[in-house]
Amino acid sequence: MTITSPQGFRAAGVTAGLKASGKPDVALVVNDGPSDVAAAVFTTNRCKANPVLWSEQVMQGNKAKAVVLNSGGANCYTGPEGFQNTHASAELVADKLGIGAIDVVVCSTGLIGEQLQADKLMAGITDAAAGLSTAGGPAAAEAIMTTDTRSKEALREGGGWSIGGMAKGAGMLAPALATMLVVVTTDAQVDADTADRALRAATRVTFDRLDSDGCMSTNDTVLLMCSGASGVTPDEAEFTARLTELCHDLAQQLLGDAEGADHDIAIEVVNAATEDDAVEVGRAIARSNLFKTAVFGKDPNWGRILASVGTTNAAFEPGALDVAFNGVWICKDGQPGEPRDKVDLTERAVSVIVDLKAGEEKATIWTNDLTHAYVHENSAYST
Amino acid sequence: MTITSPQGFRAAGVTAGLKASGKPDVALVVNDGPSDVAAAVFTTNRCKANPVLWSEQVMQGNKAKAVVLNSGGANCYTGPEGFQNTHASAELVADKLGIGAIDVVVCSTGLIGEQLQADKLMAGITDAAAGLSTAGGPAAAEAIMTTDTRSKEALREGGGWSIGGMAKGAGMLAPALATMLVVVTTDAQVDADTADRALRAATRVTFDRLDSDGCMSTNDTVLLMCSGASGVTPDEAEFTARLTELCHDLAQQLLGDAEGADHDIAIEVVNAATEDDAVEVGRAIARSNLFKTAVFGKDPNWGRILASVGTTNAAFEPGALDVAFNGVWICKDGQPGEPRDKVDLTERAVSVIVDLKAGEEKATIWTNDLTHAYVHENSAYST
Repeated sequence: MTITSPQGFRAAGVTAGLKASGKPDVALVVNDGPSDVAAAVFTTNRCKANPVLWSEQVMQGNKAKAVVLNSGGANCYTGPEGFQNTHASAELVADKLGIGAIDVVVCSTGLIGEQLQADKLMAGITDAAAGLSTAGGPAAAEAIMTTDTRSKEALREGGGWSIGGMAKGAGMLAPALATMLVVVTTDAQVDADTADRALRAATRVTFDRLDSDGCMSTNDTVLLMCSGASGVTPDEAEFTARLTELCHDLAQQLLGDAEGADHDIAIEVVNAATEDDAVEVGRAIARSNLFKTAVFGKDPNWGRILASVGTTNAAFEPGALDVAFNGVWICKDGQPGEPRDKVDLTERAVSVIVDLKAGEEKATIWTNDLTHAYVHENSAYST
Repeated sequence: MTITSPQGFRAAGVTAGLKASGKPDVALVVNDGPSDVAAAVFTTNRCKANPVLWSEQVMQGNKAKAVVLNSGGANCYTGPEGFQNTHASAELVADKLGIGAIDVVVCSTGLIGEQLQADKLMAGITDAAAGLSTAGGPAAAEAIMTTDTRSKEALREGGGWSIGGMAKGAGMLAPALATMLVVVTTDAQVDADTADRALRAATRVTFDRLDSDGCMSTNDTVLLMCSGASGVTPDEAEFTARLTELCHDLAQQLLGDAEGADHDIAIEVVNAATEDDAVEVGRAIARSNLFKTAVFGKDPNWGRILASVGTTNAAFEPGALDVAFNGVWICKDGQPGEPRDKVDLTERAVSVIVDLKAGEEKATIWTNDLTHAYVHENSAYST
């Protein structure tokens, strides 16, 4: 269950010395075809890292033959020298593989505002190219970790084809400067338009709804590479469904490993007038530090939820709102409902349901609690 | 330097027993006139507390003869019974003072989702009415405290008139469920339109730009009462200037006492295309948990600032941004500038300047760092 499980892919993960810890920090994933169709979504942050600026150019052609990823440095806000390092990475990969640099996506993660050590990076890329194998997926997944405590991989099977994935980070396809990088591989035969539609559909309801700490990264990238090596062209709806399942699986792994978190919180907003309303309400709650600290304190503080709902433009009547924690409706019609001591928040998984009573749409946003460990990890990260 | 310093006002603060701590929890402020002109601004949260719903009705007439405030319970999300308690408070004050209930503003602060103990509250109001005096300002300021570690008062003098103020809370005229309540008194002769314009002008650049933790309260109220007892009608510009100074003073006292904060951070955004752009950028930075934890860790992490700027719609070029911490320009043109070890963040006061190089407008947003103590205080608050 890794990115080299689908046919047509080789990968490697090596130690280049970019990380002070001496752990693996350069990964390479190659699509040996026959197809080189690819799709990608990038951070919407306007201050983008150099690898994102480069990779957006690569993806103009809707194809990619390789992706090189490094941890130990985000190569962000590093100016022309930083862009040159990204470009040189792609050039070196292209040279080793006999392809064009414009076919090579580049991803970086780590501290921002510092130059990568170019000599170590280039040596690492050379090593990775020499070490490529169809068993290299797990090593690649390990090499992209930063503050992750474990590598994240997933696999879904179709009829004669499969989709593999790896991910790092603790955030959403926007949030968390603990950048999220995701590489998904498939041996299904998929054309460029289908790949793009399927990837956007899958990320919209998975990574896009993961909002660990509301902070948007400069480096987030989700890349889908399609080798076509299975020779099977799947039904688009089925392909999208399996891809969405895989992205959900990876997103939940990211949530479960979020920096310093004690709780994984699923905020389900139901009976909204529109899906956008449901997402807006869920995201407002997910970004309330007072709500998040309350969950850390095992306090089912529904008042802080209503206060967050009240900051949105969604359709609802304040006196009609219901809120449940772990299935106990402790707020009914904007007032105290069942006794709050019936709610047990000792488990890591927490369910919050907010009933807007304004329509029939719904959405789920996933977030984490705000803990002492979050403060510790993020106040000490660069020192 | 208190709300009873201007002529025409009496106040009291008493212990009604609403707080488990046994500290003072009911305050009453009376305007003896001759004028009863008043102005107010309330939270923009759509889920408003009962006292806000009531007081918005009172202020339709642009006048108020008294304000009764309680700590020990926000009377929010308490339904019709809660509204009845608010109404009964106003009725009792009116009865004791021989005025109409519709002339009585009501403010509450404390936990939300719980009914006030009406019998204790009513007994407290009776005591407060009996104890009104022209020396009662400091007692009133003390009785509205919740998690505040000290009471907040201020005074500004005009030519023959003055403005007094008291405040409680740790947040902004929006943020912080640690509700912000502010009562301002003046003996200047001011008409209703002038009072309203002056109060909105003053709060717009003071309380509105205090963003301690990005959470909008359900109870926030800023009330200005004008007795006219000095007999002096000030120039509107001068009155607005003194009122703005007073509000700034109180806002800085709130910032300095914010829950669990180690640092007070002034984020000044300069050379913006519009003032709105400057406010949007400042607020985005103030709401970044990663920036706020970095300051707690004494880390001048300008990368997290640029990442926040990148989430806004303000006019700027990513490669042109400059950032200074305490006067040291450690980011120039979107790249590393002066050495970061020249920045010393050991003092409580922190200055951040972001130069957008897109125009000539500017704005300052004040916030706090995100600390272990914040997490502790807000995870344990209701338990």
